[in-house]
Amino acid sequence: MTSLAELTTPALLLDVGVLERNCEAMAQRAARHGVALRPHLKTAKSADVARRATRGHSGAVTVSTVAEAGYFARHGFTDLTYAVGIDARKIAALHDIERANGARVTLLVDSIEAVQAAGARARELGASFRVLIEIDTGGGRGGVGPRDDALLSLAREVQRSESLTLAGVLTHAGHSYHVQGGTAIRAIAEAERAGAVHAAERLRAVGIPVEVVSVGSTPTAVCAQSLEGVTEMRPGVYTFFDLDQVARGICGVEDIALSVLATVIGHNPRSRRVLIDAGALALSKDQSAAEFRSGLGFGLVCQAGGTVPLPGLCVAELHQEHGLIACEGDEDAQAMFRALPVGSRVRVLPHHACMTAAPYDRYHVVEGAGSGVQAVWGKARGWHAGV
Amino acid sequence: MTSLAELTTPALLLDVGVLERNCEAMAQRAARHGVALRPHLKTAKSADVARRATRGHSGAVTVSTVAEAGYFARHGFTDLTYAVGIDARKIAALHDIERANGARVTLLVDSIEAVQAAGARARELGASFRVLIEIDTGGGRGGVGPRDDALLSLAREVQRSESLTLAGVLTHAGHSYHVQGGTAIRAIAEAERAGAVHAAERLRAVGIPVEVVSVGSTPTAVCAQSLEGVTEMRPGVYTFFDLDQVARGICGVEDIALSVLATVIGHNPRSRRVLIDAGALALSKDQSAAEFRSGLGFGLVCQAGGTVPLPGLCVAELHQEHGLIACEGDEDAQAMFRALPVGSRVRVLPHHACMTAAPYDRYHVVEGAGSGVQAVWGKARGWHAGV
Repeated sequence: MTSLAELTTPALLLDVGVLERNCEAMAQRAARHGVALRPHLKTAKSADVARRATRGHSGAVTVSTVAEAGYFARHGFTDLTYAVGIDARKIAALHDIERANGARVTLLVDSIEAVQAAGARARELGASFRVLIEIDTGGGRGGVGPRDDALLSLAREVQRSESLTLAGVLTHAGHSYHVQGGTAIRAIAEAERAGAVHAAERLRAVGIPVEVVSVGSTPTAVCAQSLEGVTEMRPGVYTFFDLDQVARGICGVEDIALSVLATVIGHNPRSRRVLIDAGALALSKDQSAAEFRSGLGFGLVCQAGGTVPLPGLCVAELHQEHGLIACEGDEDAQAMFRALPVGSRVRVLPHHACMTAAPYDRYHVVEGAGSGVQAVWGKARGWHAGV
Repeated sequence: MTSLAELTTPALLLDVGVLERNCEAMAQRAARHGVALRPHLKTAKSADVARRATRGHSGAVTVSTVAEAGYFARHGFTDLTYAVGIDARKIAALHDIERANGARVTLLVDSIEAVQAAGARARELGASFRVLIEIDTGGGRGGVGPRDDALLSLAREVQRSESLTLAGVLTHAGHSYHVQGGTAIRAIAEAERAGAVHAAERLRAVGIPVEVVSVGSTPTAVCAQSLEGVTEMRPGVYTFFDLDQVARGICGVEDIALSVLATVIGHNPRSRRVLIDAGALALSKDQSAAEFRSGLGFGLVCQAGGTVPLPGLCVAELHQEHGLIACEGDEDAQAMFRALPVGSRVRVLPHHACMTAAPYDRYHVVEGAGSGVQAVWGKARGWHAGV
């Protein structure tokens, strides 16, 4: 077993014990609500994570890029929802992925133009696709409003297409990321559920069958009190959790499975900084958690052997390949230098696991404090097929 | 020639005409100052860009990761400075890169601990390395102060090592990125020059030979009035430029060579947003230019055929794979929807070219407004050798 001291840094560490606990808890939540769990794999982009996130249930997953669709199809995940509004120029690549792997990719639409372009492209290719209509339940990103006239005309446009089949409706309460605490998130979860179900009922009321009513974000999946009328949920970041979810009250620091291993490459006594070789590319410049908690900088710093944050330390500044750790008080700089000697290693807990993990091509798998590297798991990155 | 309409998005576009103009202007600046240009290729990570950035001069380059060192060495760039403080555990990979490609990698140190660890590792491998001592000329990142006692003890420690040779001193005035306008940047450029030269002279005064006096950042390289005593400069982002350099007064919008091609995948009349398929991963969350200019959001929006920003529009919000374009006034939303129909394409000008380009694996090369794709250039990404 490789020790952490032997790895070259920056390296992405994933605690498999925490990952499995997070996956099991979400599977139990879905079971309790009587809905399917279709984990969003944009966070992990890894087949090994996907196997744990789908253990004991359907194997259906959600993806956010053509690259992820191809990667997961090649790894045996054949029921894929591509949960970003479709550009018809991606249809040929998705059809190739389906044929090469016996997979089915369900598309997302929220405009007549997208339905027509996707339908025409599918017809040219002799392909057919299931589609979901995106519903905007308050996030203000993709989707038609649950009460909009556009919903019915969109559904009828799908029905008119020879190459598309309407599978149902999908919503993502992205605005649940901008509130804190159970009460506020529960209200958004209920609006998400009610909006999606209302849209489905309006379609059913005019004789349009709706099989799928899909909701989901990690905060709403954790906090929802009822998922009455919903058929599936699509949380993603719960697999790894991060400081952002901690700051919102969704999980504890001990639930964070992902961290970045970095090496102390210098001390600067003039600026009172410890330099590490994990910078803006290795950690990401995301500071989502700062909306609700101060003192986090670009991530919390732990000793390499564990994930308990060192009091008063954070990554205060990022350059492309340098991270600069600062302490709160001036008098603590010498203590910080002693605690983190040049050549030693630290783990950084990230604000937003999806952004931090994305550019890496592998996870180094550990289990618990003091663990060495038990396995190396590959992952997808980038956007396009065959890349 | 592929048209932009046929590409799958997001895609990184690089205007080769602008790139070559930027490269030529910097080469002329270096020649005028009588210093070598050792371009920092952390921005482009591309051999095709490196050939243009080194045209007519030495071919020496600067890198920021072991992955870049390996990539450029394989592509024939054999004089490499790895300008991040060295962790000894990277030495074996760098030595492999040297041997496989007949390359020479010069290392950076700023502590006794790093010198001892690097020296010991090199000796174990039967290798020898040239090293530069990093000087902190005000940036507060890596380096010893030009007047610090540590400078002399560090140089003597390098001289004592059998496997290391002292090549000179290196500094990076990273704080030039936090000021605006010629006067302020000229002052930092002079402090950068004077600090590096002072450090070199202190070493020479005690009989320690100093061959290399290396300075550089794009702002200081553009604004420096004198580089007396300097032997080389290492700017990087000038190859592409970006909104951050525009906001600081270093270049014009017309000098930006890099943009992201994206597809309009939806309109949301409730939130008055145009949705594109370039999100936080495709554009990066960097907002450096916001320090000096408002109204830029996460990037300015142009029609796909050119790089003239559409008035009043910017990418106002980013999700992992979604960008949300907003306009300034409410009444403009309908005009924005008409200008950017679903299925149409836009180019986004980025804040910080280094951060935006990093996760991609290729450039689509264009030349001038209305150009199709003339070539596809590969590039490095990630951190480690053989990845």
